[in-house]
Amino acid sequence: MTITVPGPTLGVVGGGQLGRMLAEAAAPLGVETIVLDPTPDCPAAPVARDQIVGDFDDPDAIGRLADRADALTYEIELADPDHLADASEAADVPVHPTPETLRTIQDKFLEKEMLTEAGIPVPEYRRVDSVADLEAAVEEFGAVMLKAREGGYDGRGNVPVRSPEEAEDAIETVGSADDPAALAEAFVDFEREVSVIGVQGDGEVRTFPVGENVHEEEILRETVVPARTSEAVKERAQTVAREVLDALDGRGVFGIELFETPEGDILVNEIAPRPHNSGHWSIEGAVTSQFEQHARAVLGWPLGSTRQRAPTVSANVLGTVDETRPAELAGVEAVLEAESAHLHWYGKDSVRPLRKMGHVTATREDGTPADVTALLESTRELRDALTFR
Amino acid sequence: MTITVPGPTLGVVGGGQLGRMLAEAAAPLGVETIVLDPTPDCPAAPVARDQIVGDFDDPDAIGRLADRADALTYEIELADPDHLADASEAADVPVHPTPETLRTIQDKFLEKEMLTEAGIPVPEYRRVDSVADLEAAVEEFGAVMLKAREGGYDGRGNVPVRSPEEAEDAIETVGSADDPAALAEAFVDFEREVSVIGVQGDGEVRTFPVGENVHEEEILRETVVPARTSEAVKERAQTVAREVLDALDGRGVFGIELFETPEGDILVNEIAPRPHNSGHWSIEGAVTSQFEQHARAVLGWPLGSTRQRAPTVSANVLGTVDETRPAELAGVEAVLEAESAHLHWYGKDSVRPLRKMGHVTATREDGTPADVTALLESTRELRDALTFR
Repeated sequence: MTITVPGPTLGVVGGGQLGRMLAEAAAPLGVETIVLDPTPDCPAAPVARDQIVGDFDDPDAIGRLADRADALTYEIELADPDHLADASEAADVPVHPTPETLRTIQDKFLEKEMLTEAGIPVPEYRRVDSVADLEAAVEEFGAVMLKAREGGYDGRGNVPVRSPEEAEDAIETVGSADDPAALAEAFVDFEREVSVIGVQGDGEVRTFPVGENVHEEEILRETVVPARTSEAVKERAQTVAREVLDALDGRGVFGIELFETPEGDILVNEIAPRPHNSGHWSIEGAVTSQFEQHARAVLGWPLGSTRQRAPTVSANVLGTVDETRPAELAGVEAVLEAESAHLHWYGKDSVRPLRKMGHVTATREDGTPADVTALLESTRELRDALTFR
Repeated sequence: MTITVPGPTLGVVGGGQLGRMLAEAAAPLGVETIVLDPTPDCPAAPVARDQIVGDFDDPDAIGRLADRADALTYEIELADPDHLADASEAADVPVHPTPETLRTIQDKFLEKEMLTEAGIPVPEYRRVDSVADLEAAVEEFGAVMLKAREGGYDGRGNVPVRSPEEAEDAIETVGSADDPAALAEAFVDFEREVSVIGVQGDGEVRTFPVGENVHEEEILRETVVPARTSEAVKERAQTVAREVLDALDGRGVFGIELFETPEGDILVNEIAPRPHNSGHWSIEGAVTSQFEQHARAVLGWPLGSTRQRAPTVSANVLGTVDETRPAELAGVEAVLEAESAHLHWYGKDSVRPLRKMGHVTATREDGTPADVTALLESTRELRDALTFR
């Protein structure tokens, strides 16, 4: 295969921070990016070639994106798989990962079914189509997490249910009693949450080192790489991640969230068919970032090295505010002054409670893997000193 | 000092590859970039917030840039210092490095005088205002390099003169016999060319490790970091670079080109008041790139670490063509497949003989400094396999 630059133009459904970092990674490769996003001047707009302002499920807008692109992808699960498939066919441009994979992952129940059929370990679960289904699941598992089959993220659409009496209210919260379309998942008593960012290219598969994810209120706060767990667990996580990639169609980066049980087993929690928050560390921490890998993979280009360059921690800058207001982050000087710390501001105009506004990454070239705990603490301190005015 | 993001908007005169990489480095810091460049859709345009199409010396265009910016800088010596000073004053926005520094560096004779007055070692030189001046210089030094005082770069505007008989023709080449406005520099019998990228911030100065520059036909081909020379020479180069920075006004990155003589002495060759081709290695090879440093310095923000992350080589992708044509570079797959190699395509529409079209950087995390020779060879191979169609 001969690859030439200027390369193909990438059409991306979604222009949030993932689209922004994708455009930043693609430009040096000679690959221009056009994003489709409903918010005028979305985060990716200033660094992308162009933005088409339109909804993620607007077939006309997706068609216009396809007409201007040589390959299609998406940075948000809300992309519409049917319209993507139609636009791909009409404009004769490939879309990756495949709409079929997106359709499966959009539905938490279908995702679990697909994994189970592939023999991949997941927490126990039951499909919930009625209050009675949920009551039965609670009786069986003791306590469950009720999840809307579609549309939930960052814990939204998830409700813990600890007794059959709570079932009816829980169903109302995630959907409607008539058509709950939910999933009940047995609570997993996990030791820690880890993730593997995997890349499926044209006939090749690569994975990044295992990251350890620190969540609070079901929102990712920090990722620590390498994960502070045993080599055996890390190997198991890599094996499971490769099995997941084998079960998925279409090229691209996949964020694979995993539970490590007290026994050292690995269960798949969720899969994102796109670059993932827990892979942001790779921009400074790995030879090739997850964003560059996604561009390479979607285009069918050779994948880059996933080798880790140094122990790395990324810490999310979330909207620590009570209500929405114009975004102005103070205290940045401490990040700028710190040795080996990097600010990533996503360019969002307004800050909302817990909105992802940016992240801070710190590396420690001369450190040992054990030093990542100290690195986690110092990176948290830098992040926590940032305040919204 | 409290620093907030979104940060100031940077107005940059020039939108070539340096402006492009500056915009790419500034975006994650929450700093947007507007470039001024005469070529519509210049290399920086797709990754910058906006481009003002206008000449580098168009006072009206520079004024419009200043009106939309919070700080001004330039990525090309052709920027007009008087217009920059006027626009800075009219719009009340700072410009760095100072117009005075730009004015001095634009004139190779004034640059040498400034260095000499500061006690900084430079090759012997004479001001040339007539054929007779040049003849006298040749008599004195044996052989000289005649350089136009203004406007030359990449060896253009330079003519070697080996005997008084060649003086008249040489003068005609670099200027006119009536007003030669040139400089005669004694040939330096140098061991190697090295450079130091220095950064002058708000009350702090930092320098990157010494790079070794390989030139051919007076055009930079590769930079090897660390330079393959003695620790004593590297220390001397650092000392001289800091003296140069002390002698210059205004914040920003300065590319300081040096000669190492056979005796291990260091002489200053030329200074660029901006990020420099020999500092491109820092994007992957250092904790903070020269482009991020330039943005930080111009804004008066704290400087980042200049620590080297790994032995690094950058190799320029020059226009290996006989005549101008649309740019299409083939053979990119070898760069993509190589371990730890990175492509940087500048997005220029057409390729001209020896035009700078991009560069390839390779790092070697596990290498010793001695391995840089092998790294230089492998990086050259990757670069040399790239061909323009």
